[in-house]
Amino acid sequence: MIDRLARAVDLTLERGFDALLVGVGPDLRYLTGYVAMPLERLTMLVVTPAERGAVLVVPRLEEAAAKAGLGVDIPIFTWGEPWAPSRDPYKVIMGMLVGPTGHASPRVAVSDRLWASHLLRLQAALPGARFEPASTVLKELRMIKDADEIDALRRAARAADRVITAISHGRLVGRSEADVAREVRDRLVAEGHQTAEFAIVASGPNSASPHHQASARIIAAGEPIVLDIGGVLDGYASDTTRTIWVTGGDTSRGPDDAFLEIFGLVREAQSEATAVARPGTPCERVDEVARAIISAGGHGERFFHRTGHGIGLEGHEDPYLVAGNVLPLEPGMAFSVEPGIYIEGRYGVRIEDIVVCTSSGPVALNEAPRELLVVDG
Amino acid sequence: MIDRLARAVDLTLERGFDALLVGVGPDLRYLTGYVAMPLERLTMLVVTPAERGAVLVVPRLEEAAAKAGLGVDIPIFTWGEPWAPSRDPYKVIMGMLVGPTGHASPRVAVSDRLWASHLLRLQAALPGARFEPASTVLKELRMIKDADEIDALRRAARAADRVITAISHGRLVGRSEADVAREVRDRLVAEGHQTAEFAIVASGPNSASPHHQASARIIAAGEPIVLDIGGVLDGYASDTTRTIWVTGGDTSRGPDDAFLEIFGLVREAQSEATAVARPGTPCERVDEVARAIISAGGHGERFFHRTGHGIGLEGHEDPYLVAGNVLPLEPGMAFSVEPGIYIEGRYGVRIEDIVVCTSSGPVALNEAPRELLVVDG
Repeated sequence: MIDRLARAVDLTLERGFDALLVGVGPDLRYLTGYVAMPLERLTMLVVTPAERGAVLVVPRLEEAAAKAGLGVDIPIFTWGEPWAPSRDPYKVIMGMLVGPTGHASPRVAVSDRLWASHLLRLQAALPGARFEPASTVLKELRMIKDADEIDALRRAARAADRVITAISHGRLVGRSEADVAREVRDRLVAEGHQTAEFAIVASGPNSASPHHQASARIIAAGEPIVLDIGGVLDGYASDTTRTIWVTGGDTSRGPDDAFLEIFGLVREAQSEATAVARPGTPCERVDEVARAIISAGGHGERFFHRTGHGIGLEGHEDPYLVAGNVLPLEPGMAFSVEPGIYIEGRYGVRIEDIVVCTSSGPVALNEAPRELLVVDG
Repeated sequence: MIDRLARAVDLTLERGFDALLVGVGPDLRYLTGYVAMPLERLTMLVVTPAERGAVLVVPRLEEAAAKAGLGVDIPIFTWGEPWAPSRDPYKVIMGMLVGPTGHASPRVAVSDRLWASHLLRLQAALPGARFEPASTVLKELRMIKDADEIDALRRAARAADRVITAISHGRLVGRSEADVAREVRDRLVAEGHQTAEFAIVASGPNSASPHHQASARIIAAGEPIVLDIGGVLDGYASDTTRTIWVTGGDTSRGPDDAFLEIFGLVREAQSEATAVARPGTPCERVDEVARAIISAGGHGERFFHRTGHGIGLEGHEDPYLVAGNVLPLEPGMAFSVEPGIYIEGRYGVRIEDIVVCTSSGPVALNEAPRELLVVDG
């Protein structure tokens, strides 16, 4: 952990920032190990790279939790004794930036997920300061996962695989999407997830909406279901999608040819895009490969999202597999590969794995079968 | 819902704002009904009160979900077709604000929980714009709960009560805090919560840390446990705390006199503070009442947090029961009342209810017994 913080200090300095301000969230966890809930009372890591300084500013009542939670040995500055309201933490922090250097317009990297309410108060405390998202610096660190992180992602992925498999082979027809989504969340927790962040259960025409919210719709025989589920296990995110078809036990209600065609295209796009995800491949190239296959099949405009996103402490993070991102993949990068085709009013298909780029090529962390599963449901 | 949006338009105009920008989160849910995950791709409600305009800006892939999720009839503007990257949504939005009025430095209220990464891009898109937290406007609406909201808070509170009661009467001694916390989360979900946001299980000396993270510490006979648990049920938050004492079945290991003394003080402070939470009472007065009792008992500096926070779609929201907040309570306001005493290295006590201010006085939504529960554990 101390290595990460030291590297963040180096990078912040190298990139010409006078300070790095990190609120509660994945960046704080990554750099210090400290996990806390994002709240209206400011908790903030203040890094001043020129003097290699780092201090954690916390509300008084969080002091003991912060001491217990910090994985690095840095001083803690508390604010907010309620009987003497109190040093303004925003002014204290911005004062730290001006203080040592006398710099009235410091260039500050601020964690991407900090709430606007906090950022506005930091800005008001020192109007000359110039703020930029910390991801411009920290993504260089966080994108490259170490072995422990990849192991954590693998455990999360395998847990999600088991949930997908159990749901796919359970009863589905006659149940509401919302009911199945509840079962998904319960199973994610039972498989070790601390939180089950999302459970997309999109049946029949709803499968044409990539981010469909599980609804009261009753699942019927003779339709597909897109299951896109994920959460957080030991800090690292899972996110996997499989598309299945339920017949209700009536073999005449299997998938039609048009569905089989788009499923085949998505399957091929997912497979081929994964195959090119090797060191040196630009991120956008992975997207291009998937898109070319689907476009050649005549469904280009029905694949209206990027091919993937990085994953780690956040469900979505750098690198993004999207047109315009020329960043070359490197060993240790982890990301989703998840093309889809969505035919409005009818149905949709998506297949998603979490993939790690290794020196010997792409490795899919998910292992649940990717072929079309046709079940009684 | 349309009433809420209309009132937000009125209030925004009245307070002299040129626009209200609301990202994914509780404000968006409150005003439009639309629930989505906060992500790096911008989803934003743009309200321009002068022309009574409201439009929802969403990424292309969220369009169907937004249509299904919106409870108000407003236009949807999509961005981000991945094959033609694309209109910059930040420039589009800030252009909307300049457009009709020709106003190059509009005054903009922006939702408190919007991520810094989004706010910085909005600011860069129109450097003259002046941003302020939307809570300064929206709290006037959101603080006053309607009957449905109070009913939702009550259901969440009762569910949390059942979990507290079940945990308090189950086996505890010999288990780790983390194991009990897992059971808390499982039970919150089993009782209907969609998410179990926190499960503080603070045993023995850990109970002196108000926001202790449940740890590997094994719970022993002859010590207190602070249980502070909560989550979200049908959109509304639960948050309740009880302090119990476990003897391990050995009657000689009951609470000592010093513990009984601080428990009595917290119990009285919680009760008396609740009793004054009537219409017209300034928020800070509720805090004063609790603090005076604990200070008179000689433990003032060991009650180092405010007495309470509002609760609703967010776990913490206005009004805050804290020194300096002269806002008078009104019927429909809902908040925690949660004094505590924390003796470092030894133990702590906290008791917390969710309380609603009604025209006939305060009503506690939690019903789990507040007296000291001494159990075998």
